[in-house]
Amino acid sequence: MTVVKWEVRAGTYYDSVVLMQLQRGLLGLPGVADAGVAMATPANKDLLAANHLLPENVNANSDDLLIVVKAENDQSANDAIGQVDELLLRRKSSNSPNFFDFRPRSLSAAVKQLPEANWVLVSVPGRYAAGVAREALDLGKHVFLYSDNVSLEDEISLKKTAREKGLLVMGPDCGTAIINGIGLGFANRVRRGSIGVVGASGTGTQAVTAHIHNLGAGISHAIGTGGRDLKSDVGAITAHQALDALARDDETKVIVLISKPPSPDVATGLIAAAQGTGKPVVIYFIGYPPPARKIGNLQFAISLSEAAELAVNGNWELVIERKLPITNYLRGLFSGGTLAYETLLGLQASLSPIYSNAPITTNQLLEDPLRSRAHTIIDLGDEFFMVGRLHPMIDNDLRIRRMKQEAADSEVGMILFDVVLGEGSHPDPAGELVPVIREIREKRLETREPALSRVEGLEFVAVVIGTDDDPQNLQAQIDQLREAGVVVFRTATEAVEYVSLRFVTSKQSYLTPVNLDQLKQPLAAINVGLESFYDSLLSQGAQAVHVEWKPPASGNEKMAALLAKMKSKKEN
Amino acid sequence: MTVVKWEVRAGTYYDSVVLMQLQRGLLGLPGVADAGVAMATPANKDLLAANHLLPENVNANSDDLLIVVKAENDQSANDAIGQVDELLLRRKSSNSPNFFDFRPRSLSAAVKQLPEANWVLVSVPGRYAAGVAREALDLGKHVFLYSDNVSLEDEISLKKTAREKGLLVMGPDCGTAIINGIGLGFANRVRRGSIGVVGASGTGTQAVTAHIHNLGAGISHAIGTGGRDLKSDVGAITAHQALDALARDDETKVIVLISKPPSPDVATGLIAAAQGTGKPVVIYFIGYPPPARKIGNLQFAISLSEAAELAVNGNWELVIERKLPITNYLRGLFSGGTLAYETLLGLQASLSPIYSNAPITTNQLLEDPLRSRAHTIIDLGDEFFMVGRLHPMIDNDLRIRRMKQEAADSEVGMILFDVVLGEGSHPDPAGELVPVIREIREKRLETREPALSRVEGLEFVAVVIGTDDDPQNLQAQIDQLREAGVVVFRTATEAVEYVSLRFVTSKQSYLTPVNLDQLKQPLAAINVGLESFYDSLLSQGAQAVHVEWKPPASGNEKMAALLAKMKSKKEN
Repeated sequence: MTVVKWEVRAGTYYDSVVLMQLQRGLLGLPGVADAGVAMATPANKDLLAANHLLPENVNANSDDLLIVVKAENDQSANDAIGQVDELLLRRKSSNSPNFFDFRPRSLSAAVKQLPEANWVLVSVPGRYAAGVAREALDLGKHVFLYSDNVSLEDEISLKKTAREKGLLVMGPDCGTAIINGIGLGFANRVRRGSIGVVGASGTGTQAVTAHIHNLGAGISHAIGTGGRDLKSDVGAITAHQALDALARDDETKVIVLISKPPSPDVATGLIAAAQGTGKPVVIYFIGYPPPARKIGNLQFAISLSEAAELAVNGNWELVIERKLPITNYLRGLFSGGTLAYETLLGLQASLSPIYSNAPITTNQLLEDPLRSRAHTIIDLGDEFFMVGRLHPMIDNDLRIRRMKQEAADSEVGMILFDVVLGEGSHPDPAGELVPVIREIREKRLETREPALSRVEGLEFVAVVIGTDDDPQNLQAQIDQLREAGVVVFRTATEAVEYVSLRFVTSKQSYLTPVNLDQLKQPLAAINVGLESFYDSLLSQGAQAVHVEWKPPASGNEKMAALLAKMKSKKEN
Repeated sequence: MTVVKWEVRAGTYYDSVVLMQLQRGLLGLPGVADAGVAMATPANKDLLAANHLLPENVNANSDDLLIVVKAENDQSANDAIGQVDELLLRRKSSNSPNFFDFRPRSLSAAVKQLPEANWVLVSVPGRYAAGVAREALDLGKHVFLYSDNVSLEDEISLKKTAREKGLLVMGPDCGTAIINGIGLGFANRVRRGSIGVVGASGTGTQAVTAHIHNLGAGISHAIGTGGRDLKSDVGAITAHQALDALARDDETKVIVLISKPPSPDVATGLIAAAQGTGKPVVIYFIGYPPPARKIGNLQFAISLSEAAELAVNGNWELVIERKLPITNYLRGLFSGGTLAYETLLGLQASLSPIYSNAPITTNQLLEDPLRSRAHTIIDLGDEFFMVGRLHPMIDNDLRIRRMKQEAADSEVGMILFDVVLGEGSHPDPAGELVPVIREIREKRLETREPALSRVEGLEFVAVVIGTDDDPQNLQAQIDQLREAGVVVFRTATEAVEYVSLRFVTSKQSYLTPVNLDQLKQPLAAINVGLESFYDSLLSQGAQAVHVEWKPPASGNEKMAALLAKMKSKKEN
């Protein structure tokens, strides 16, 4: 029969290392079978209960520390509880003596001690973290923000400030970065090299950088962004800064970008920025169907290990035809539903907004299939069009009318269509389509007004599906189309790559460039929070100062609010 | 100034070829600027309006044929409308004289004329199609069901009947098939070869088979299923039959399976069936993140062209270790969120149902993160677990407790976990985990009861992320784990493949096998519907009979219902 005893300590702040060490201390005491030490949040109480460590009538809430001991008998349990204070003290005095005899108690004091530090690591509890990060930015420091539970508003505000100052805020909830060979937070030791990483995922960055090292290559910098950076609200501020910095960094020859699927508008901007770097970029949007294997200087991976492998061994023939990019809209008019779908799938990452009567996501739904908006992909074989009508592979009438309709829209810069040959299909689709294309071209030239001089004509692109045995004569079909100026591809994959590249515009990103010299200097940092991150900086040979941080008013929220109010009054 | 005249013909059935030809006939008349001929559905009226061909005060509904002419003047317009009957007649008389002087007017008559026909092509309007297909099944024929607008209930009922009889129902809305070298519906002419295709997408199958041909290889059979076959309700009946047939077909050496994303339970069954074929299978779930590049005999493509390329050139080293598969559940306990996510992403296709506290789809949500269900992947670094607690990469306590909890569940057959080394992480994770693993193993051996003899022990699998420069000594960590019997991988990718293969069970599929001899006989078919499909069968050298089909009571629905009632009375 075991006995459970507990103690509640109300409203005091303990950092999580202290809690872990207290628990381990209790477990080491004679007669103790199990012990739990945790802030009494609902989740932690559930966890204690799952381990049969939650007393029935305990009265403690999220701000309270709950200490529970399960022991062989009353005596052992009481003894253990009685030693809590001593164990907490022992933990303090066991702190190894440190490089700096004097530990600063504030960030500003730490900066005076190590003025060359360009980086501040923040891993204090979430509710205090934004404040520390803001202070660091005010002091002109880059921030590695390990803490989670930071509000979205704080993240946006911090990142906007940072972008103006040319500083990085990596995080919140950023687990991993490697700057100039020094790992911040959780980071594998990897050799220096020519591959730069932008990672919205901590373990993703670890898995990729470790695998790159294991494959014999190395890392220039791995810049974390935090998982929320690529959400619409944040707009990938840090990822854009990081891409820009790695693009300018001569040591970085290849870039890897890892993230959970970004929102569509953010993806479009990031892909444009990645293309704008002019360097090979491997993109892995975790859990997102890759739009293609390759679009110009971009390659898309389907796993962390593949991202690393492509960065190290990727076949990077960057032969990009430099035509003036199209700034107008694409209209895709497909007879084949799957070709339409695959094309939409491939283009949705780089053309935004894009609509379709056969959308992949609901926000792509074209409400009126008869009227295109922005970039549009139409499946003309969709049921909507099909009642009492022959399939558009047999009857070109519907497509011809729609082609004329699209061409009459001066905002349309490209018409993309498929020609599916074979048994059952129209005997000469090119023969019907080409005269219409010629007519459209001539009409456009006639009606072009000076005001429309930015309209770079109208490009026609076709995907021709067929074989040399098909009854229509594949080569003659292709020749007819090409003679009419149509750019012809034989697979949707090739067409998707071509179209993506034709429409790409490197968007101007409004950011103050990060100072590359700061990335290249021997890393010196100030650590606020988990001491193990400080230890690890030292063990890697970096210069570092650890701040003996305590929450304002020792975690008493009311008192802290009062102090903040007084401080703000004094400043006014 | 142009003039628009129109005519409404109420409640009569015209097939879509007739309508197209009437429209073209009108367009060819003197003074006619444009013409529209369509059943007056709302969509078609919208289309006419978009072409300025919808008179304002026209009164016609979906069952009516609307004929509209736009001409230079009244005279031309009236003349054109006046010629509608003549044009309809001209179309009839221009029918080229045919191989069979006598055209059967019913399916049963056609079968008497061509008894060796094993295939019936159905392309009549949707509301009649299920009836024709059922008649074909009753006559013991395979069905190629091109028609769309067939109800889901009819599809399920037809397919269940077909499965019992060992017959295929390809469709509804099946655009493409190639049986023994003959294309049905829309199909490219491709050489015969060793690649079999199962396609839930018509143009998908065309693009893949054409590309395979263009790459120099060929097709054994391409079996269509219709787009809805892989929905939960239908349960991929046709796809399972097709996989089974191609598995048994000696001429088929590689199989390609193409579909839009199937529902999770259907995907699991299909993947198991694909693995069960023992042949190389290329799977392309269009728009679905591929679970891996390769799982045993399966390879996953990300585009139609890649699917073809893998089928032709795929590197198929099928070295599969044959251990007794695990029939119990997987529990994944991860410290790295992205590793958990990537693992879930890779396993969700083959392990079902699977749950997680960091799910990809909402139906995967594990409601109580403290209690696993079925297959479960836990991200122990999730916020839920993290308040006031160190990250599980530093503190192993949470994971050790959970490991013991999972191991105590006799339904658990494998525990998968990650070990992330590097700066910031625990100095010796294996040193803490291995004693627990040993303890669990011993306990399991002790407590195994005879009733539990089917429990094949408990397997531990680890993904170790690290480098040879990491402070923990990578090799020593791996050695410790391996000595304790843990199967160790260095990437999530490899672990996903291993785990998928360990859990796979070739499910018994209850189907009457399709008679392979029927697939290998020279194709003979009966065509009901679009005449162009009949023409194309003949031009490919197949034997075929075209049924001069008319809807019951010439499309008069009330009369048809009456006739059906009388017929059913007579039969009773």
